[in-house]
Amino acid sequence: MHDPTRDAPAGASPIEDYLARLHARVSALRGGAPADYIPELLNVDADRFGLAIATADGHIYAVGDHAERFTIQSVSKPFMYGYALREHPKDEVLRHVGVEPTGEAFNSIILDDANNRPFNPMVNAGAMAAAEMMKGEDPAAREAAMRAFFSDFAGRTLQVDEDVYRSESETGHRNRAIAYMMLNSGMISRAPEDVLSLYFRQCSLLVDCRDLALMAATLANRGVHPLTGRSVLGPDHVRDVLTVMNTCGMYNYAGQWAFDVGLPAKSGVSGAVIAVIPGQIGLAVWSPRVDGHGNSVRGVAACKAVSEDFGLHLLNNAASPRSVVRREYRGCDVGSKRLRAPQDRDALAQDGRAIAVLELQGALYFGSVEQLIRRVRALGAQASHVLVDVKRLHDADRAALRLARHLADALDGASARLAVAGLVEGGPLADLHAALATHAQAGELSLFDDLDAALEWAEDAVLAGRGLGPDTTKFALGRIDLFAGLDRAELRLLEDIVRPMQFAAGDRVLRAGDPARAFFVIARGSVSVRIPLDGGGQARVAGIGPGLSFGEMALIDGGVRTADVHADDTLVCYALSVDQLRALSAEHPNIMVTLLANLTREFARRLAKANGEIAALS
Amino acid sequence: MHDPTRDAPAGASPIEDYLARLHARVSALRGGAPADYIPELLNVDADRFGLAIATADGHIYAVGDHAERFTIQSVSKPFMYGYALREHPKDEVLRHVGVEPTGEAFNSIILDDANNRPFNPMVNAGAMAAAEMMKGEDPAAREAAMRAFFSDFAGRTLQVDEDVYRSESETGHRNRAIAYMMLNSGMISRAPEDVLSLYFRQCSLLVDCRDLALMAATLANRGVHPLTGRSVLGPDHVRDVLTVMNTCGMYNYAGQWAFDVGLPAKSGVSGAVIAVIPGQIGLAVWSPRVDGHGNSVRGVAACKAVSEDFGLHLLNNAASPRSVVRREYRGCDVGSKRLRAPQDRDALAQDGRAIAVLELQGALYFGSVEQLIRRVRALGAQASHVLVDVKRLHDADRAALRLARHLADALDGASARLAVAGLVEGGPLADLHAALATHAQAGELSLFDDLDAALEWAEDAVLAGRGLGPDTTKFALGRIDLFAGLDRAELRLLEDIVRPMQFAAGDRVLRAGDPARAFFVIARGSVSVRIPLDGGGQARVAGIGPGLSFGEMALIDGGVRTADVHADDTLVCYALSVDQLRALSAEHPNIMVTLLANLTREFARRLAKANGEIAALS
Repeated sequence: MHDPTRDAPAGASPIEDYLARLHARVSALRGGAPADYIPELLNVDADRFGLAIATADGHIYAVGDHAERFTIQSVSKPFMYGYALREHPKDEVLRHVGVEPTGEAFNSIILDDANNRPFNPMVNAGAMAAAEMMKGEDPAAREAAMRAFFSDFAGRTLQVDEDVYRSESETGHRNRAIAYMMLNSGMISRAPEDVLSLYFRQCSLLVDCRDLALMAATLANRGVHPLTGRSVLGPDHVRDVLTVMNTCGMYNYAGQWAFDVGLPAKSGVSGAVIAVIPGQIGLAVWSPRVDGHGNSVRGVAACKAVSEDFGLHLLNNAASPRSVVRREYRGCDVGSKRLRAPQDRDALAQDGRAIAVLELQGALYFGSVEQLIRRVRALGAQASHVLVDVKRLHDADRAALRLARHLADALDGASARLAVAGLVEGGPLADLHAALATHAQAGELSLFDDLDAALEWAEDAVLAGRGLGPDTTKFALGRIDLFAGLDRAELRLLEDIVRPMQFAAGDRVLRAGDPARAFFVIARGSVSVRIPLDGGGQARVAGIGPGLSFGEMALIDGGVRTADVHADDTLVCYALSVDQLRALSAEHPNIMVTLLANLTREFARRLAKANGEIAALS
Repeated sequence: MHDPTRDAPAGASPIEDYLARLHARVSALRGGAPADYIPELLNVDADRFGLAIATADGHIYAVGDHAERFTIQSVSKPFMYGYALREHPKDEVLRHVGVEPTGEAFNSIILDDANNRPFNPMVNAGAMAAAEMMKGEDPAAREAAMRAFFSDFAGRTLQVDEDVYRSESETGHRNRAIAYMMLNSGMISRAPEDVLSLYFRQCSLLVDCRDLALMAATLANRGVHPLTGRSVLGPDHVRDVLTVMNTCGMYNYAGQWAFDVGLPAKSGVSGAVIAVIPGQIGLAVWSPRVDGHGNSVRGVAACKAVSEDFGLHLLNNAASPRSVVRREYRGCDVGSKRLRAPQDRDALAQDGRAIAVLELQGALYFGSVEQLIRRVRALGAQASHVLVDVKRLHDADRAALRLARHLADALDGASARLAVAGLVEGGPLADLHAALATHAQAGELSLFDDLDAALEWAEDAVLAGRGLGPDTTKFALGRIDLFAGLDRAELRLLEDIVRPMQFAAGDRVLRAGDPARAFFVIARGSVSVRIPLDGGGQARVAGIGPGLSFGEMALIDGGVRTADVHADDTLVCYALSVDQLRALSAEHPNIMVTLLANLTREFARRLAKANGEIAALS
């Protein structure tokens, strides 16, 4: 009936290969027998065996009879409990069903002495108490709501197997007894037949391994269906559901299962088992022969093998918070895109050490924030500015928000200033942004859209502290880097051909693609250089201020501009026509040789700086 | 007696602040009473309250009476169970003590019907069965071994409180009954008084909150003590110990604890509670008033608050495998450090797209390797070379090793070649290196020390596929980039002053610090440019081959060399003296202007490439 290799095509991935081999190996197990207390369940080939894995991002691996349909039975219980938690206050749910494991079997009639309630939602009594919490005007509305809820979890519309439902309903005397006991103890209040009917129909939903794997993957993915993207259950309720699956999902086999397999799981009498690896995958196995605990023999064996082979035990502790700091460096190693005058450059090459940069990645949670705070404190004792770039964080949980709000306190006592870069209002870490924004308004820290802006801010502060920074005073050609080494007479010749120009803030000075016939030196103000990006939009590649030049490549190529240049504020600059300069150099070759040598030196310097940054970034 | 603020100095970290506030808040709880069944335990101030957190890397936060000593009592049980697992085969341990939770109290006399063994190692019967497994010739040797084991976990030498020991020994009639029952059922075989004596002495070990936090942190840190660095328990045994703490650590409160707190934990009748957040922290609380379950009232409240406030519930699922790929780019965006001739550069700017690079970070485990394999497969369909840089991985578990071994299979059917870079024999990922090395020997993949070498290899292959690559044929000055634009007569003048030179593989051509008086063009072979690093050692910053020049900064500065240059293989090159060139240019200024313009263009090109790399790397 099943063919272990049919889902392992040529060029299968190592995971498909693994599952095909696992399927073949576990197929050899012939122990157990299909459950016989629901007669209709015997009408199935006992040797069927399907297995599916769905990843939290929706990739599906499947082998064997993964597309055969069967009734969900008790595997429905954790989901129904999730519904109860979603739709009712937690204390109300806990009044009707507890969370303590019991040494008793799944169809135990015993209620908890102290509270007269079912021990947990994974035994039939507890599952019926949860089913009674289904909302709806009448039985038909409640059934529709139940089917809609389970269909959301599966990502497709599920149907009830009417034959199995009838069979369960006709023979479910023990469950009737449990329902009447619970009516007697006040744990349910509707007519037992109403509750039983919904419960039996819930158990008779038809699913296949792919459905169950996706339902489990939805739990692995914090309640969001990996394919439909729909949030079926909130993360806190997912945690509660996984907790009861973990402690009670495998009945009186729970302790040994926790020891051997270590995954939140649930089995059903039709031979299905699901297991959840939080954040990673949902696993579903179906094979009808069940053991004395009511668990599928092959299902248990397959889950145990997958857990062991891939170290998936919940307490295996593979991930560690070590990697939240992606990179750490100082402002002397990587600078902002602002071009600086020589004395400013020299100052930053030295004093840029006072600027400490921490680039984060991954998720912020208790362990990673605790490390971050410790590092920020340590850096605060050495640096004047601590810049934290959070652009690459993909998540921050409540603990992170709680602690991050106090990030600035970490620098108490130190004189260092804190800046956080990479947070955008309404962006993926909107909560973190909101948590920090109020502290930014109170002046306790600074927020920047991107790290470059934060770096420029810190550099300006470091330079201002040393009486340096943009020089907006008297302008003289001899003070421009590009003309260094020219003598007084040569400078005089240049002054004759410079053309003063003025631009308002935002004016375009150069446009990419225009012919390059002149270059410029800045007397006052600054410009931003932006290059067009492949995917549209622009990237700011440099900021240039007083005493510095731009557009010098016109001297070399006389081709076209490769970047847009805009005035940041009121800009006073001097233009030099390349044609006039060439004419001048025909008689005074040293002018051109000096300019080119200066230009080469400047590019070599920038190249060395860029290589340094590449080394620091790698 | 206790002062909630005394451990929160000025400039305390947000975590110290939090703990001080928590301590003050929980101090208000006055419920419960010190346990009275060991008379000596009543000789303690019931209002004492200490709390300590130790991180997996050994940082300690502590408040209140964290330095007061008390007896460890039942908190010793999980550690002793770890000892039994470490020293005996698992099936032997499981024959003497089970792993199923029980609804019974800690001092239950009931043994499991089916196996006649204690339900689990967290009830007294199970703890005694574990204590009997202590190795040693005689009682004194066994006690010494027991103390040594616990001292390793604490990181200091622990002593027994003789008064408490005597008190327990004199009044422990119920435990005596349990011991005799177990002797009767064959679960222990030594004289009950022997076992009891060791068990009572183990329970009477004196510890403080700091000790217990470090013991818990050792479990959080996979069995390695955060401060001493000693591996006290293997990771698999740590997993087993945490599992029984998780299912049975809080007695018949276990289900509710798993629901509310969700951390592997253990309480003791002296008022201590420990909780473990795997990979992150160990938490210890001590306050003598205990509730009806025998759990410290303040201990439970403090653990619950810490878990809730920081989202530490085991099933909260904060970490996700999303971030294992740190960065992905193509060979056209980031190239190797090898300088290429113009036609090769043009080819790579286009065809470098066929080289796909994946930089990984963090830990490799099932979820992250599964994603990696899927990405490698997808890239294999688009690229000719897939390079995986694992330099920044800090861990790879067994699942990763198992799957990584089949990484090359992921490209089955695709013609792409796979290379893994950043693995060093005997390095931190030695197991991964070993797993891949055999496949590299079989030619299924290539291993490189670093990504740059892998990139150069892939580029060479891409160029070779297009009939390009290092040109080792006829050498002519006119084909050198640096001399482009010179006319035939000017080239003739240069040829008169070039000086042919030859070097053997490994020869030093230039030395950093030497005067720069000439520059070189390569006819055959290649050189590596290395700059000295601040911390000692050197970094290879460029590889330069035929048709390209090096040492050209001599033209500009005439200063000293900034890098070492060595011949990679037999090197034929031509030297040009800067003095001779200057003399020549006095009469032929266009030679110098052309050379400087070419040089500027080359630096501008390299700078643009470097800026592109910075953008790709950021």
